[in-house]
Amino acid sequence: MALGEVNSNGDARPSKRRREGLPEKMKALQYSGPEKFAVVEIDVPTIGDDDVLVKISACGVCGTDLHYHKGEFLAKWPLIPGHEAAGTIAAIGKSVSNVSIGDRVTADPLQPCLSCFHCTRRKPLLCESITAFGGNVPGGFAEYCRYPARQVHPIGVLPDLEAVLIEPAACATHGIERMQLEVGSRVLLFGCGPTGILLAQLIRLNGAAHLTIASKAGPKLDLAKRLDIADDYITISDSHPDTDLSALHTANLYGFDIVVEATGAPTVLENAINFVRKGGKLVVYGVYDDKVKIAWSPFKIWENEITVIASFCSVQHMPHVLEYIKAKKLRLDGIVDRTFKIEEWKECMDVVRRQECVKAAIVFG
Amino acid sequence: MALGEVNSNGDARPSKRRREGLPEKMKALQYSGPEKFAVVEIDVPTIGDDDVLVKISACGVCGTDLHYHKGEFLAKWPLIPGHEAAGTIAAIGKSVSNVSIGDRVTADPLQPCLSCFHCTRRKPLLCESITAFGGNVPGGFAEYCRYPARQVHPIGVLPDLEAVLIEPAACATHGIERMQLEVGSRVLLFGCGPTGILLAQLIRLNGAAHLTIASKAGPKLDLAKRLDIADDYITISDSHPDTDLSALHTANLYGFDIVVEATGAPTVLENAINFVRKGGKLVVYGVYDDKVKIAWSPFKIWENEITVIASFCSVQHMPHVLEYIKAKKLRLDGIVDRTFKIEEWKECMDVVRRQECVKAAIVFG
Amino acid sequence: MALGEVNSNGDARPSKRRREGLPEKMKALQYSGPEKFAVVEIDVPTIGDDDVLVKISACGVCGTDLHYHKGEFLAKWPLIPGHEAAGTIAAIGKSVSNVSIGDRVTADPLQPCLSCFHCTRRKPLLCESITAFGGNVPGGFAEYCRYPARQVHPIGVLPDLEAVLIEPAACATHGIERMQLEVGSRVLLFGCGPTGILLAQLIRLNGAAHLTIASKAGPKLDLAKRLDIADDYITISDSHPDTDLSALHTANLYGFDIVVEATGAPTVLENAINFVRKGGKLVVYGVYDDKVKIAWSPFKIWENEITVIASFCSVQHMPHVLEYIKAKKLRLDGIVDRTFKIEEWKECMDVVRRQECVKAAIVFG
Amino acid sequence: MALGEVNSNGDARPSKRRREGLPEKMKALQYSGPEKFAVVEIDVPTIGDDDVLVKISACGVCGTDLHYHKGEFLAKWPLIPGHEAAGTIAAIGKSVSNVSIGDRVTADPLQPCLSCFHCTRRKPLLCESITAFGGNVPGGFAEYCRYPARQVHPIGVLPDLEAVLIEPAACATHGIERMQLEVGSRVLLFGCGPTGILLAQLIRLNGAAHLTIASKAGPKLDLAKRLDIADDYITISDSHPDTDLSALHTANLYGFDIVVEATGAPTVLENAINFVRKGGKLVVYGVYDDKVKIAWSPFKIWENEITVIASFCSVQHMPHVLEYIKAKKLRLDGIVDRTFKIEEWKECMDVVRRQECVKAAIVFG
Repeated sequence: MALGEVNSNGDARPSKRRREGLPEKMKALQYSGPEKFAVVEIDVPTIGDDDVLVKISACGVCGTDLHYHKGEFLAKWPLIPGHEAAGTIAAIGKSVSNVSIGDRVTADPLQPCLSCFHCTRRKPLLCESITAFGGNVPGGFAEYCRYPARQVHPIGVLPDLEAVLIEPAACATHGIERMQLEVGSRVLLFGCGPTGILLAQLIRLNGAAHLTIASKAGPKLDLAKRLDIADDYITISDSHPDTDLSALHTANLYGFDIVVEATGAPTVLENAINFVRKGGKLVVYGVYDDKVKIAWSPFKIWENEITVIASFCSVQHMPHVLEYIKAKKLRLDGIVDRTFKIEEWKECMDVVRRQECVKAAIVFG
Repeated sequence: MALGEVNSNGDARPSKRRREGLPEKMKALQYSGPEKFAVVEIDVPTIGDDDVLVKISACGVCGTDLHYHKGEFLAKWPLIPGHEAAGTIAAIGKSVSNVSIGDRVTADPLQPCLSCFHCTRRKPLLCESITAFGGNVPGGFAEYCRYPARQVHPIGVLPDLEAVLIEPAACATHGIERMQLEVGSRVLLFGCGPTGILLAQLIRLNGAAHLTIASKAGPKLDLAKRLDIADDYITISDSHPDTDLSALHTANLYGFDIVVEATGAPTVLENAINFVRKGGKLVVYGVYDDKVKIAWSPFKIWENEITVIASFCSVQHMPHVLEYIKAKKLRLDGIVDRTFKIEEWKECMDVVRRQECVKAAIVFG
Repeated sequence: MALGEVNSNGDARPSKRRREGLPEKMKALQYSGPEKFAVVEIDVPTIGDDDVLVKISACGVCGTDLHYHKGEFLAKWPLIPGHEAAGTIAAIGKSVSNVSIGDRVTADPLQPCLSCFHCTRRKPLLCESITAFGGNVPGGFAEYCRYPARQVHPIGVLPDLEAVLIEPAACATHGIERMQLEVGSRVLLFGCGPTGILLAQLIRLNGAAHLTIASKAGPKLDLAKRLDIADDYITISDSHPDTDLSALHTANLYGFDIVVEATGAPTVLENAINFVRKGGKLVVYGVYDDKVKIAWSPFKIWENEITVIASFCSVQHMPHVLEYIKAKKLRLDGIVDRTFKIEEWKECMDVVRRQECVKAAIVFG
Repeated sequence: MALGEVNSNGDARPSKRRREGLPEKMKALQYSGPEKFAVVEIDVPTIGDDDVLVKISACGVCGTDLHYHKGEFLAKWPLIPGHEAAGTIAAIGKSVSNVSIGDRVTADPLQPCLSCFHCTRRKPLLCESITAFGGNVPGGFAEYCRYPARQVHPIGVLPDLEAVLIEPAACATHGIERMQLEVGSRVLLFGCGPTGILLAQLIRLNGAAHLTIASKAGPKLDLAKRLDIADDYITISDSHPDTDLSALHTANLYGFDIVVEATGAPTVLENAINFVRKGGKLVVYGVYDDKVKIAWSPFKIWENEITVIASFCSVQHMPHVLEYIKAKKLRLDGIVDRTFKIEEWKECMDVVRRQECVKAAIVFG
């Protein structure tokens, strides 16, 4: 593709890109279909007047990427995954003023269409034809990625492996908005994966007086303790989970104002409702198999006025996350504990699936 | 029980009741245990300094009364049921100033304890030891009933058979508060029993631009149409409900901002979630069998950010209902279409169970 | 300007416009500077791929237009005013799918930039570089107007002189969102100009049990009564306003849950706070002289926990307004009671300034 | 007054108090009228069945006490002030079960009547005939004080001089509820007296990503820094406050999401609105002279959609405060830096008026 042409996702408009010293070609991890991926050498993306080109330094690996691997969610071929990117501005379109070449940035990977039923009703997160960088247009598992300028946010000197956490933290921030925590709340969080670790911190910064994390043992729970992000840690053993949960129940007879299910396990979600205080909220935060159903008693929901809420992902919460980061209120260090090159993608997926790390990231350069 | 004594529920404090012309004895429908009821002649209740004595004119019959009949819910023996009472102040305690003898009133039947875990956290509706007139203390299926003065509200010249609807309307008002309708909402209501008919009107007065009622055919749906309380009426037939629901779905591809399940049928509730718009709310408003469970897809809840809310009953919403009534904004006429004397209680229950009326009431004198 | 060129506001991208039968030239009311206006013949606007061209039928005249006349607000020369437009789609860009040629539409005149500080924090109404059709780009006081497709909304067979009210109704809808009316509220509205008449109706559709309108006598108050949009009407006389207000106070000793000041008179606003119930809200809804200050007692605000809120204008509330209109819940007839051609603009302004009509509109054809 | 009698505020009902070892008489600081106070020896209060008797250990001195001194607010003679009490349960009424003799407690000094216009509309904070311990019934500047059992809350081993801060922290908790902080907010707090120091901490625990305190120099600002309760501290000098405020403005061009005025100075409040971000909130938190007015531009409020909110005091927020305290999330140490005996009340008031301490408390024993 020659410079100035409209690129494959049809979004960029022709423009002269300022490109002193930019290469013509780049490496990218590209899928041609479900489970069919390869490291390819392709043209560096062209950018339009309102776009920026980001030289990717690191891009976090998310459970969603494993869904894309199988061809689920929004996947559209050919696909370059990666939606938790951090990097440096390598080129800017002629109308761009919010960032300059050389700025370190992260990118909000979801761009609502603004025209659909939900967008025109001020619900952009529910957009019916959302542009998802790393989902239906090229993402961050490549040396370069094009973004509309308004999707990127300067990150200053934040280390790359912390910056890749801004996107999951933005999702957690949306979760906080959904929860509407009352002052002085007691919260129970099932699961402490990387997103749980971020959510936990935001929960304590947004009203929770007391946070209990319930999780199975392992490096994630160990990290949670090391980062000191909860008031209480309950280990749920594989061998006798019921005993552990029963003890948790006994120790909290009035339950919790908010119970967050962030493991994605339907059985945990089904049980989680029993820990919700009368008048409290159950937060569906994990990603569940789309064929599974859980069974709840409507009488229990009714009599106890339990509210079930869900938090899907995020649009436009990065400025809020960056406020916390700039004020040094979020611990991001140590969460990404394994890095891979794009050539190691298969190994990376194996490590992630076997849960041998807290969080993996793809790195470049 | 002699005047001046503390009465059986331990709440009234001794006082000289002003009782010119009051009888010593009254008739009441009293349960001695589950399904064991009789019309008895007992002492007219004594009242304390802060109490009033109401001569009951009419008292609505609610599905809850059939649960009490079986000994469910808060039932405590001996029990005089009836929590939708209207009548006239027959006597007042010496500290009472909000009403006078002769005032026509209705009574809020739930009095929170103010001292329990939830009450001290400003959640009186969730009170753990609530006093329920007609539940665990004597109610309105008697010629007289004692209430704390602050539980009663003047109703002016509102007809008795309309005044008994203030209590269910108060529950509906709480439901409105729970729903937090956004301006311009489209709402679907399953069921149009008496409480549904009240709820429908309040939904349209509180933000809904469009309300669809889906119900099986019968006198309740006929009344809803006659009262003109919805924008659209969908009859769900017994013979092919799926066809009707499928047509409803097709006609509303974006679903509804709010879907209220007010039939109490678990299968309807289970299906109702499919009519909720992305980002919308499902309201658990019916009373369900406490052993039943319904099955929902957590992935669907998560991906569509569906909120499930519940509305249990009400404390202290009567002033709000009375604002609507005083402004002539609620149609209450024709909802109570059958009346019975307490001596006809068995027949009354039969009629209610067979759904031969929209709403029954017990009347006196 | 030739077809296919980028137009003066720099927003449209070159495209082949479908233009069977469109004229090259059109008439427009154009300002070259403050108070300097003329009816000019200029090129019909070109449109980009995502744009539509609307043949204007009617465009409401708003107080804001008189501010633009003086060069205030966003005014940018040359300026074609008019932001309450209704018309017919005359041409569409090649990417447009939400409307077709021949559709009757109204247009949301405010288009947030999506990139500024506030837009990137999900506060598009507060946009720092908003595109205002009829403010800083050409608007509806012309035979044709270009809009981005997502700014226009089909209106079916709604009469032109009712359709021009959708924009002020959208502003009122935003006002409703700001107010967050509690169920059963009592509301006092000062002023019943066209926007007040729309706001009043939405207040009653969104929770108010009782609405009082206080206004001076005249055609606006007469129309309000004829449309039956309030529960009570208080005439504030020019000769003894204090007596009238004092009577209003006496008749409402507990004040109102919400008091809306929609006259724009600072003295009314200053006094309006005295009608707010403890815990209630005062809504700053009028447009005030930017040099005026009002004086309030902070002790009164504090002791009574009065909330002062403001409602500025609207972005993206037209779908909600259209829900009410489609359900026939808004009375729009008779509000526009005077129409003018653009050649009569001077006379139109005079009539508006002298308050000789309820609402004026510019009409074409 | 003999045991068993109804006491002077008419609220206690006769009961046999368990009073092993209780004295007949106690010392109290009692006012007979404005500015007329003396340490008197009076009967230890009797208690009713639902009451407790608290042996006071310490009671904080609040600005409100200086208003009572002048006969303002709710003052009713004879008056024993003191509404920030901590002590030990010395006796309990026969119906009391939430606390036992020997328990250390604090007391919520405000008891709504439950029967007035606002109470019956679920707005107990706005109660029209509230019982105020230390305001219109005897309070904590005495060796013993009677409270209804539901007004007291166990405090475990919390030191007395920290426990007296629970009441002002409860007021701050209500303030937090009023503010409804959005996630990631930037907040500016004018003033850091004891209540400001508590409010600041709760602001950071309830959503603020960044908190700036602006205050004049002195022991209060020094303490704020020592407790590390803000992200930024701006000293406003007496000699050139405008320069300091101007610098604060320049450093925060987008203003703050929330600006809290907690000094009580009208000029500060008048100016504070200039620091509010578009769409932000100004919180009227100080206590202002009831004759003063401040001047604001309604155009500015309207154009920027500024919300002005107020936070008066608190009912029933102590459980929420105690959640934070139990979780060790509130720094309470060092705030009370001067203690006095009731015999030293005059000296105490002088020290408080001269602002020679951060916070004073009366102590016993």
